[in-house]
Amino acid sequence: MVQTLADIGEFGLIRRIHELIDQEGVKAPGVTLGIGDDCAAFLPDKGYEILVTCDCMVEGRHYLSGHITPFDLGRRAMVMNISDVGAMGGIPLYALVSLGLKKDTPVNDIENMYRGFIHELNPLGAAVIGGNITGSDYTSFINITLTGKVEKERMMRRSGARAGDVILVTGYPGQAAAGIKKLLDNHPGDDLSKDPLVMAYNLPAHRAREGRAVALSGFATAMIDISDGLIGDLSHICEESGVGADIIRNNLPFSRHMRNLISPQGWDIYEMIIGDSDDYELIITCGPENTDNIKAVIAEISDVPVTEIGNITAPVGIKIITPDGVRHPVKPIGWDHFKR
Amino acid sequence: MVQTLADIGEFGLIRRIHELIDQEGVKAPGVTLGIGDDCAAFLPDKGYEILVTCDCMVEGRHYLSGHITPFDLGRRAMVMNISDVGAMGGIPLYALVSLGLKKDTPVNDIENMYRGFIHELNPLGAAVIGGNITGSDYTSFINITLTGKVEKERMMRRSGARAGDVILVTGYPGQAAAGIKKLLDNHPGDDLSKDPLVMAYNLPAHRAREGRAVALSGFATAMIDISDGLIGDLSHICEESGVGADIIRNNLPFSRHMRNLISPQGWDIYEMIIGDSDDYELIITCGPENTDNIKAVIAEISDVPVTEIGNITAPVGIKIITPDGVRHPVKPIGWDHFKR
Repeated sequence: MVQTLADIGEFGLIRRIHELIDQEGVKAPGVTLGIGDDCAAFLPDKGYEILVTCDCMVEGRHYLSGHITPFDLGRRAMVMNISDVGAMGGIPLYALVSLGLKKDTPVNDIENMYRGFIHELNPLGAAVIGGNITGSDYTSFINITLTGKVEKERMMRRSGARAGDVILVTGYPGQAAAGIKKLLDNHPGDDLSKDPLVMAYNLPAHRAREGRAVALSGFATAMIDISDGLIGDLSHICEESGVGADIIRNNLPFSRHMRNLISPQGWDIYEMIIGDSDDYELIITCGPENTDNIKAVIAEISDVPVTEIGNITAPVGIKIITPDGVRHPVKPIGWDHFKR
Repeated sequence: MVQTLADIGEFGLIRRIHELIDQEGVKAPGVTLGIGDDCAAFLPDKGYEILVTCDCMVEGRHYLSGHITPFDLGRRAMVMNISDVGAMGGIPLYALVSLGLKKDTPVNDIENMYRGFIHELNPLGAAVIGGNITGSDYTSFINITLTGKVEKERMMRRSGARAGDVILVTGYPGQAAAGIKKLLDNHPGDDLSKDPLVMAYNLPAHRAREGRAVALSGFATAMIDISDGLIGDLSHICEESGVGADIIRNNLPFSRHMRNLISPQGWDIYEMIIGDSDDYELIITCGPENTDNIKAVIAEISDVPVTEIGNITAPVGIKIITPDGVRHPVKPIGWDHFKR
């Protein structure tokens, strides 16, 4: 018999989660009051600003419960938030987890999801310090609020890009889009759990360490993580900075896994690279004189490739430049939850 | 034609909300980065700890969309969180609002909900500084994370109650339970929106100012707000403090609105007062020598009644003492989202 939430109840579940976090999570310094009161509390460090971000995953929209394990789902949900703190140049600190759960959910699945949270937080010295659990009859959801800290003068915003800046991107945007396409095109029974593109979707890497290193270097002018697609998030930088961008199509980075897709599936790889895809890679802008410096700063701590994909322009609007020299305007919008 | 989220999209909605907050919300001091980046940021004040809490309302479980206006829904959702910060003795600061919305939701409803948030935050000098918006096909939900601040030595926990302490409660717990019962028993077409008990459910008052005054006074040993019912939340104090409690039934406070229910409806009023009810009143424990001091501290700033309802005991378990002197053990559990 699988034990469900209906068997142990809300307070039984909270006790189990509390024990699991005590036993398997790191003790985050600065926490003065953890799970079990009206609020959690922490003592802020001098010289830092506090960062706060939240992200929500809704079953059927942001994850397919049959296609991802609870452990990986926990990892993915936490990575999304860690990525946001990293994109500000910050250090992740404390998480609040708010869950909406169906009452037939196995307790073991919830515990494994928390193990996924902890798996991502522990290496950073960060911890779950509170949250909320409620019933939801039709749709499960996971909302995480993550706090972090950053030195005021090191905070990386979206709004600092200037005309003439180089645009850099880490890793291979579009892999997550290819991964979910493979999952949805999949024949029942095929195990895609080890497929590198499916893994890029289910278990994206965050670039919080890379973001932190870039912020501390002082070489970048703006930074954002990719959760709305390369063009979608670049357009956020452009909008907040009051600039435009030229992207050189032939410079867009392909992973070999993406390259392998071209002939068998006949998919439009460029569309995936620039379109909706939540890869949690970083887009970084910097003066041309600092391109190599930023690459060097990242190379010191990480194997992730860093690619120059174009330039910031004074005229607004984003354009893709094809090898024939034609500049193709693109719609500056990424994933929109309501428009489709 | 009613404009819906499908018409303006996620980014259109974010722009509208951003404008509304800029125009109608107070400028909260300390905010260094508001809506429109990967994180929001604020500069913590010296000498304070940071409090964080979150609460989630799910359509159909925590609110009935036909029975509450969007403005009141926004107020209610924010009150729940303000109440948690107040129950720690803290000052509410910054809110992150995470929404799961159906795409046919009228934009105007969302804006009015934000006006409800702002209505509660503005008088406290607090503000919405960020959040997340996502689609949810079947069920709308509202998750709010609220930060606050409190001096370390003034923080009020659940864990400080000692045997012999007096148990105080503000206001009239049970009114919210009576209010939702009236709503559910209602004949279609009857307008209950001005019914005082329905209002106690739809628009509970928070006691953040009272909680802050109690905390600053140093007279209390433990404090909690009532969101799981009087017995449910008293049991949280008992559990965290390792104590029990005797409640004198005849001391339980009745509002006249509650008293008026007895004859016509024949409802068990005591069951409502001690059972599941989210009234956001405070339960406060203190040494018997400080009972009058706490009453005086609250009376200085508020008209809310404060009632002695019993005592903390060394033996664990909560008992209700009826006028015949019999001590009736009660189950130490309040609202459980999964057990029913």
